[in-house]
Amino acid sequence: MNNFTFYSPTKFVFGKETENQVGDMVKEFGGTKILLHFGGKSAEKSGLLGRVRESLKMSNIHFVELGGVQPNPLDDIVYDGIDLCKKNNLDFILAVGGGSVIDSAKAIAMGVCYDGDFWDFYSGKASPKKALPVGTILTIAAAGSEGSGDSVITKKDGMLKRGTGSECIRPRFSILNPALTQTLPAYQTACGITDIMAHVCERYFTNTKNVETTDRLCEAVLLAMINESPKVIANPNDYEARANIMWAGMVAHNNIVGVGRDQDWNSHGIEHELSGLYDCAHGAGLAVIMPAWMKFVMKHDIMRFAQFAVRVWGCKMDFSNPEKTAREGIESFRNFLNSIGMPATLAEVGGNEKDIPILVKKFGLKEGETTGGFVHLTSNDIAEIYKLAL
Amino acid sequence: MNNFTFYSPTKFVFGKETENQVGDMVKEFGGTKILLHFGGKSAEKSGLLGRVRESLKMSNIHFVELGGVQPNPLDDIVYDGIDLCKKNNLDFILAVGGGSVIDSAKAIAMGVCYDGDFWDFYSGKASPKKALPVGTILTIAAAGSEGSGDSVITKKDGMLKRGTGSECIRPRFSILNPALTQTLPAYQTACGITDIMAHVCERYFTNTKNVETTDRLCEAVLLAMINESPKVIANPNDYEARANIMWAGMVAHNNIVGVGRDQDWNSHGIEHELSGLYDCAHGAGLAVIMPAWMKFVMKHDIMRFAQFAVRVWGCKMDFSNPEKTAREGIESFRNFLNSIGMPATLAEVGGNEKDIPILVKKFGLKEGETTGGFVHLTSNDIAEIYKLAL
Repeated sequence: MNNFTFYSPTKFVFGKETENQVGDMVKEFGGTKILLHFGGKSAEKSGLLGRVRESLKMSNIHFVELGGVQPNPLDDIVYDGIDLCKKNNLDFILAVGGGSVIDSAKAIAMGVCYDGDFWDFYSGKASPKKALPVGTILTIAAAGSEGSGDSVITKKDGMLKRGTGSECIRPRFSILNPALTQTLPAYQTACGITDIMAHVCERYFTNTKNVETTDRLCEAVLLAMINESPKVIANPNDYEARANIMWAGMVAHNNIVGVGRDQDWNSHGIEHELSGLYDCAHGAGLAVIMPAWMKFVMKHDIMRFAQFAVRVWGCKMDFSNPEKTAREGIESFRNFLNSIGMPATLAEVGGNEKDIPILVKKFGLKEGETTGGFVHLTSNDIAEIYKLAL
Repeated sequence: MNNFTFYSPTKFVFGKETENQVGDMVKEFGGTKILLHFGGKSAEKSGLLGRVRESLKMSNIHFVELGGVQPNPLDDIVYDGIDLCKKNNLDFILAVGGGSVIDSAKAIAMGVCYDGDFWDFYSGKASPKKALPVGTILTIAAAGSEGSGDSVITKKDGMLKRGTGSECIRPRFSILNPALTQTLPAYQTACGITDIMAHVCERYFTNTKNVETTDRLCEAVLLAMINESPKVIANPNDYEARANIMWAGMVAHNNIVGVGRDQDWNSHGIEHELSGLYDCAHGAGLAVIMPAWMKFVMKHDIMRFAQFAVRVWGCKMDFSNPEKTAREGIESFRNFLNSIGMPATLAEVGGNEKDIPILVKKFGLKEGETTGGFVHLTSNDIAEIYKLAL
């Protein structure tokens, strides 16, 4: 096991009607004049924003609103948010939405405290040191951004999707009411499920030895997802299944299941080029890329994939042919994703073979460079993975 | 699933040689003049305390020392600690040791900020609202006190062992170096293992329905413990197994595996009377009590015990006789505890049948009163559980 630091100081308030506590929560964490940041019209229509405004007013919190965050959030609204915060001297950002809104809020929070262009944090030019405090009300179980120090933003110019991470952008509090996710259409729900499972897989496939505790925790989240997901696809109003998935989504990504081990985030990176270029849902892109990546890297550690197959997917170990078991696990994962309505091929998310060189080029590895992880990948390897997803 | 709040703002620094960072950590969390609190001579002999003093001096942290905390920590040293803190205007408490030292540090931390007798918090007379900040360097994987808001102290007068809990005593940081636990004798190591597994079981056996995510997380911790424990009993110097157990010990008790569900802490309560009266190790007492408690309550929910048997202990489900499967799981647990050197009977921890009325009386239920949890227990029920442990 590797040495590590684990620090997850977010206060999670979970359950029915918890959004009505938001005014008190903002106050508890020092917010007085805040940016209320959100996405499209659904939060308005459902009455959620109304309840949030009411709770903020009751706690005498002054707020300025900025809605309109899109899935795969863009840099332009981040600039608008930074301007609004500076102009109005705002001291806290409240994100009401899914990962896109939260990631946008985090970008604004860093940008307000930085003299240069906030994009420097995403292009790797600078490391964030300070940010306004962020709180969230989560409406989609997927990104895990409610409990993580990560943020992903797309630069409109060139459609570059890039991520950054810093302890300073971990939310101070996150309000998780599973009932808020009941209105989510099946497709978006399934995209979230895929993202959650991918967050576990990116941690699970590691070269670090002797990590049984985190291995078992990873498997636990996947097993729970396998049990609960078909229930919400069959019945979107299943509060209990929604609740199990929502908590699993946080656990999958605040790193409690990933500490002490090398991780591999190449599937996420390879997918980002898909959703960046075709504007498909991140989860749909992952459903296409993850099994392809698994097939490509499998031979690097057959026994780890066999463990995945047996412990997570209930495959029988073929002791005379472990590779067969490993392949069965990957197929089970792919079949599961298809069964909840996720795509299996590049074409289904708008891609095609002739775009592969463009996707590889956007990924941005230089000649001779590799991207690290479970298996170090070259540009050629990445092209092969896209091909396996055709 | 029940509504819940989960807040675990402890910074965990995990791995080899991490104790050398303690000076910086104390500074990061605002300590300037601190109480250095520890147990017996082993921390001195091993050189750990020397390294801690060195690191504190390097960071210009002034410190006053108070050693001598015993297993099943007593109230008298807590009073000494409170006096020392007040007299010297100390602003932070650093606990170097296992759960006993950390629990004692937490009691002192609360007592300093309270005008009355600190025992009020343990007798249920008062709720703690404020405490000095506490940091820890853990030397025994067991209590989970390094990541919890709990503390257990024994009042010398009457040997009353009582617990309290408050968010204000969660450690600000905890340094976990598995190598520090390598010198621990096999018996103490096994006691720690039992305590960790008990912390999971107290959460696992619940009446709350639809808690698949936390069920799976509980099972994950138990499965990891079953895999790693025999390794450290066979080879105390197995750093990797020590590391897996140490992290599992934290995960088992900061409540990430127990949120959203009713819990049952009666085994702990029933055990406390054993270690209170006979001064046996808490883990050894639990090894005797847990299987007895399980046998007594099993019929309340056979299918939950069958799930425990199948998923955790790998028993085959007997579909025509689930109770048989349930019993097999309990037997497997008991056998496992015996295999790592834990006792199976009351006699082995110094108890006997004629003391049972004394133990029941000390437990303190009034006529007609029950103690809540998975199954509500009367004084008679508690006597029966002690009898099952004979």
